[in-house]
Amino acid sequence: MNFAMNNFLKNLMDEYDIDLNHSGVNGERVAARLAKLSLIGVTEDGGITRIGYSKEEEEAKELVIGWMKEAGLSVSRDGAGNVFGRLEGQKISPAVMSGSHLDSVPNGGNFDGPLGVLAALEVVEAWKLAGYTPPIPYEVVIFTDEEGSRFKTGLTGSRSFMGKITEEELDYIRDGNGQTFDEVIEAYGSDRKSYLDADYQSGNLKMFVEVHIEQGTVLEKHNEPTGIVKGIAGPAGLEVSFKGKAGHAGNTPMENRKDPVIAAGMFVQEIESLPRQVSQTAVATVGKMDVLPNGINVIAQEVNLIVDIRDINEETRDKLIKLIYQKAEAIAEKRGIEVTWDINSKIKPMPISPALQEKLATVMNKLEIAPVYIPSGAAHDSMIMGQEIPTAMIFTRSKDGISHNPDEWSSLNDCVKTIHVLKEFVESVMEE
Amino acid sequence: MNFAMNNFLKNLMDEYDIDLNHSGVNGERVAARLAKLSLIGVTEDGGITRIGYSKEEEEAKELVIGWMKEAGLSVSRDGAGNVFGRLEGQKISPAVMSGSHLDSVPNGGNFDGPLGVLAALEVVEAWKLAGYTPPIPYEVVIFTDEEGSRFKTGLTGSRSFMGKITEEELDYIRDGNGQTFDEVIEAYGSDRKSYLDADYQSGNLKMFVEVHIEQGTVLEKHNEPTGIVKGIAGPAGLEVSFKGKAGHAGNTPMENRKDPVIAAGMFVQEIESLPRQVSQTAVATVGKMDVLPNGINVIAQEVNLIVDIRDINEETRDKLIKLIYQKAEAIAEKRGIEVTWDINSKIKPMPISPALQEKLATVMNKLEIAPVYIPSGAAHDSMIMGQEIPTAMIFTRSKDGISHNPDEWSSLNDCVKTIHVLKEFVESVMEE
Repeated sequence: MNFAMNNFLKNLMDEYDIDLNHSGVNGERVAARLAKLSLIGVTEDGGITRIGYSKEEEEAKELVIGWMKEAGLSVSRDGAGNVFGRLEGQKISPAVMSGSHLDSVPNGGNFDGPLGVLAALEVVEAWKLAGYTPPIPYEVVIFTDEEGSRFKTGLTGSRSFMGKITEEELDYIRDGNGQTFDEVIEAYGSDRKSYLDADYQSGNLKMFVEVHIEQGTVLEKHNEPTGIVKGIAGPAGLEVSFKGKAGHAGNTPMENRKDPVIAAGMFVQEIESLPRQVSQTAVATVGKMDVLPNGINVIAQEVNLIVDIRDINEETRDKLIKLIYQKAEAIAEKRGIEVTWDINSKIKPMPISPALQEKLATVMNKLEIAPVYIPSGAAHDSMIMGQEIPTAMIFTRSKDGISHNPDEWSSLNDCVKTIHVLKEFVESVMEE
Repeated sequence: MNFAMNNFLKNLMDEYDIDLNHSGVNGERVAARLAKLSLIGVTEDGGITRIGYSKEEEEAKELVIGWMKEAGLSVSRDGAGNVFGRLEGQKISPAVMSGSHLDSVPNGGNFDGPLGVLAALEVVEAWKLAGYTPPIPYEVVIFTDEEGSRFKTGLTGSRSFMGKITEEELDYIRDGNGQTFDEVIEAYGSDRKSYLDADYQSGNLKMFVEVHIEQGTVLEKHNEPTGIVKGIAGPAGLEVSFKGKAGHAGNTPMENRKDPVIAAGMFVQEIESLPRQVSQTAVATVGKMDVLPNGINVIAQEVNLIVDIRDINEETRDKLIKLIYQKAEAIAEKRGIEVTWDINSKIKPMPISPALQEKLATVMNKLEIAPVYIPSGAAHDSMIMGQEIPTAMIFTRSKDGISHNPDEWSSLNDCVKTIHVLKEFVESVMEE
């Protein structure tokens, strides 16, 4: 065990409440596994770089496959590299599936993905200890390339599994080194045909449930270890371009300007209050803004920005898009400049069924956790699975909401409490 | 004569009022000379690229030196490449000097610089025709590298002439190809020692006057061909950095954000009205703004921007700087984010003496031009000369205020009217 691992493991164990080791769930095992994974693709900062379809992602899968086999799962892979560890049930039935991913963004954290995989696997470990065979089949899944850092796309593993990737997309995408999809997937030991054939058999799955870190601060504010995802927001990208008139910063009196930077400034300020006009869960963010020509002594000619607009409900999300582009138009008119806008992407929000949320709340109440309902602003494999299969999602508290960063952290107590929720929930769904 | 030149000359001549050819000033000659210069460094768009210390700038100087000699001037150069065409007067006396520059920004226009040189030379042509010897010496000057496109600095010719360049600056600067100053100046046929020795002899000059295009729209609005510069604004650069808290655009509720983009938006909007609080001539511009990390789905961590702040009066300019950084501080406090600011450059404004402005007004009234007084927001060689020598500046109307662009345009009528003003003004100063 090297120093970095030792340190990570020590931090996990330091405040661990040993009483959480019950019902066959073992916090030390979960911590040791998180720590072993933390070495694969480890960065200088103690983060990890495990890009989709990389040797690091593959190495992490191999490690978990070993654990799956030890736990008695029969392991298979599909052409997209998704890994399935299956436990047969007492009867033949569509399976309950749980899991997440092992890839990361560059210099990402140690919980985003791995926690969901290890939580799903820990349920099997607990059953094994108890000599329990579930009534229906259970599958632990590792989806490939959730983050999309390889091709600047995302969720390719779960999308392949659900038949949501087209040949056109595969023709189009290139990785950071300019490699085509075919080159990458062949180097990975698969090929395009197997990849496209990776679809699951409709009717094979009863439910999908994913454990994931929150990557936000709602649970921290409520001081709860784990919470119920009430829907996954569908992001829309609204590109807005304000076009004014370039001029010399010294020779153009203030009164004669058509400065698009000021229009953009008004715009970013005024859209801040719009999400609350449509719902309590909507958000709108301008994180990308480019000023042209971006010269110190030149009144800008153009400002291009993208508004990231999300809500878990499609109707309110689309209402917000409209409020925002109307605001852009009103400001441009007031300032006497031009504006153009375009919706460059729009993904359907994925609401989570109230019945599944209710079932999770029942489990949490039993475990003395007050249910907190949280919209997920980030995309997850659940968003893809939920398009065809009943899907639930459980969040684990994130320290300071930090994610995609070496400082990403969830306490072992919170992780293990989440695993108890997952186990009880899966059992209650299976026993229906 | 090639097509481009033919076309440029035709456009100049098309609406020329031949009655402006009087007192020895000849519009056709001025037009033909502008047209010949327009071929040196001509670009695809009909603009010119004549960077300081380039062979194109040198070729333009050689062409004008030929005209200077034909007009009877004795020509000399200093170690900075500045060119002086001298006409002795009836008596020994400090000289009146007039001129401008022949270098340009990349793909710049045909009037910014050349008009001032040709106007100064046309005064000599007029005197020659009239057989007039001025009472005191007169010099036509071509300053090297006014625009500063070579080293991302500026006014190096006039600064060398006035002893305003230090060895430290020469050690530091590099051109776009990474060449040192010494490499550039040696390739140009001079050396560092001659360059630093290029200073003018104090007491040799009675006055400097520069004709230049306005590069703004004040004269157009007043419908006057030429105007009186009442001061050259000193630019100050205020770097402002708003630091918030990065976060996921989907997972951070609107209420929990510390988004520096919104603070920057408020800031650029609110500073728009501040210049009028200090004077009628002050301006403030945010032309450069960088959002970090500038990701579509990331709440920004930091926004860095530069406010270009100018006025022709140092006191009001500095008051405006203070109002602006106080505004940044107030917004940051209101938004609960951090702000830092720094004044990264500050050049003294150069006021023009009311006596010289008055003399110009008298000349204009005589020529039936209503005096319009204009602050110059852009820097000019006059700004350097004025630090030690009585200096005046005359603007020529610019079409639509466009400059540093192939579309830069001033009508030949306006150019010639300006030359008449220059000639009368120089004579009245000499005859004092």
